[in-house]
Amino acid sequence: MDANKGKGDQGMQNPSGQMDRPVSFHFLESMLPKAVKRRVHALKRLQVQCANIEAKFYEEVHDLERKYSALYQPLFDKRRDIVTGTVEPTDEECEWHSDREEEEELAEEVKEKAAIEDAKKEEATPEEDPKGIPEFWLTIFKSVDMLSDMLQEHDEPILKHLKDIQVKFSEPGQPMSFTLEFHFEPNGYFNNAVLTKVYKMKSEPDASDPFSFEGPEIIDCEGCQIDWHKGKDVTVKTIKKKQKHKGRGTVRTVTKQVPNDSFFNFFNPVKASPDGEMDEDSEFTLATDFEIGHFFRERIVPRAVLYFTGEALEDDESFEEEELEEGDEEEQDEEGDEDEDDDGDFDPKA
Amino acid sequence: MDANKGKGDQGMQNPSGQMDRPVSFHFLESMLPKAVKRRVHALKRLQVQCANIEAKFYEEVHDLERKYSALYQPLFDKRRDIVTGTVEPTDEECEWHSDREEEEELAEEVKEKAAIEDAKKEEATPEEDPKGIPEFWLTIFKSVDMLSDMLQEHDEPILKHLKDIQVKFSEPGQPMSFTLEFHFEPNGYFNNAVLTKVYKMKSEPDASDPFSFEGPEIIDCEGCQIDWHKGKDVTVKTIKKKQKHKGRGTVRTVTKQVPNDSFFNFFNPVKASPDGEMDEDSEFTLATDFEIGHFFRERIVPRAVLYFTGEALEDDESFEEEELEEGDEEEQDEEGDEDEDDDGDFDPKA
Repeated sequence: MDANKGKGDQGMQNPSGQMDRPVSFHFLESMLPKAVKRRVHALKRLQVQCANIEAKFYEEVHDLERKYSALYQPLFDKRRDIVTGTVEPTDEECEWHSDREEEEELAEEVKEKAAIEDAKKEEATPEEDPKGIPEFWLTIFKSVDMLSDMLQEHDEPILKHLKDIQVKFSEPGQPMSFTLEFHFEPNGYFNNAVLTKVYKMKSEPDASDPFSFEGPEIIDCEGCQIDWHKGKDVTVKTIKKKQKHKGRGTVRTVTKQVPNDSFFNFFNPVKASPDGEMDEDSEFTLATDFEIGHFFRERIVPRAVLYFTGEALEDDESFEEEELEEGDEEEQDEEGDEDEDDDGDFDPKA
Repeated sequence: MDANKGKGDQGMQNPSGQMDRPVSFHFLESMLPKAVKRRVHALKRLQVQCANIEAKFYEEVHDLERKYSALYQPLFDKRRDIVTGTVEPTDEECEWHSDREEEEELAEEVKEKAAIEDAKKEEATPEEDPKGIPEFWLTIFKSVDMLSDMLQEHDEPILKHLKDIQVKFSEPGQPMSFTLEFHFEPNGYFNNAVLTKVYKMKSEPDASDPFSFEGPEIIDCEGCQIDWHKGKDVTVKTIKKKQKHKGRGTVRTVTKQVPNDSFFNFFNPVKASPDGEMDEDSEFTLATDFEIGHFFRERIVPRAVLYFTGEALEDDESFEEEELEEGDEEEQDEEGDEDEDDDGDFDPKA
């Protein structure tokens, strides 16, 4: 049932409803007789107690999530084995019924499209039976805007070696957190078998603003050291710069390493400063990082195959479009950052 | 931390990300070698199993909600007693500290506004110490667009007698549902002490589309019979109509009762047809009703005081604006419905 249309139907009956709304709660409270204002404050104190109970509720939900992740794990392991080709599913395991209306339609479309495609098939798929599901995770990275936005061409050959992504929850009694584990097969780029990103969460009302509490939120994250093979680190690039000797004025060319765009910067995030003092850019970057961590945990890992086939993309589309528009606005800033001439250790007037 | 800006910052790095997305999953699947497509189908079967486990997870979350509603209840009872004036909170219970930065600012604003308002105070609040918190729930109904949209002038005197709204969850083992209880003090309009609205929920993947499962959803609702005092039923209005005798052509005036806009129609909802065959209007209306039921349960009842003061309104604002726009579009349909001349049992050509 379409909720938006529903909202419309309801919005209709009294479009001027907004008029009735108090200008602001300070205003309304200031209008109240002392005795009543006093009682409202009592209700607010009760509301703070509610927020604290709510925090406990979300901790128990987190425990439930931990319990259920154990129930999902065998299915996810099976997924990994099929993706990597370690296991070949039986015919029964591969039966995908089309006995339901919807799916029959899909099946039809598939056949038509397949027919059209059959010609190209050869070059599209040189080898008729590759191992497992080739480029399973890379395809997902390319399909999901939030990830493709981070993805650089030089990341793609590396991500072809990504075998699995897992979510691990913190142990009972430990501070609330979850860890994203990126499992790689042996590859020519780094020695790590697993790259990890830990997201620390908080499930308690903010003392300064208890009413804004809406459940656990990510408050910090931690990456990991990538043990790159020599010259394989895609997160840095070497640039040549002319340097003028302050005294003699002679000019020499030096090479230096500067940060390079790459998905693998995901494992070297900005540090959230405890005092909350951060420049806007870092704040944006960190907020984005939190979004992505949450998206891996909530959507990508639990339903990877639907992102591989594209079935899950429709749901997230509107959200992603939003994302892109804003992305365009931001573009200039980034170019600014990449501008080498701003580099401090070179002084033209000397 | 501003997530949207974050998204922007991220959207920037590769605005063309969308290009990489497969046109459609039927298309992509049709491109895959048979052996690979077969494995993808195996993953889809695993994904269906995940959806079924997820359904169990949400049932356990529902149990948790039931458990916690018992923990909230004493606080909500206290709220009711303060609102109705049955209990006068102690000074300690009314202490509302302004020792935190944010709140000090608020306090300042309050003082200023209060000063401005002091003059008007007398007429604004004739009686300096009313009982409890007068019009607590009515104020909320007027403040929240989703509710004020249903509210009619003739509903307001009735809602002044609303003492409390409670949410009751279905018993363990029973089908998942929740009941909204509207508790009224004795009043001159109807005999019911409590008006109820039951929302039935479903927490299992739809067989025809298991991947769209995102947790429990409301599937049906049931109102209650309101035992109106004679002539007090605001959900109907009496209209006069001229009626021409088919044979003799004499004209007489008859009065008939027709439905009337009122919040209290909330307790006489459209029936969801089991086969899902419904006309658009009814579908809209029902979708809206589900929205409202959910909103009462999730927002209004748990944090009523914040809607009374307006503190909670900012959060919902964007959502409500959306709502209003769509509402305007719909307006004509409604006027159509209210047009009495369309009435069937009067035939001008006879």
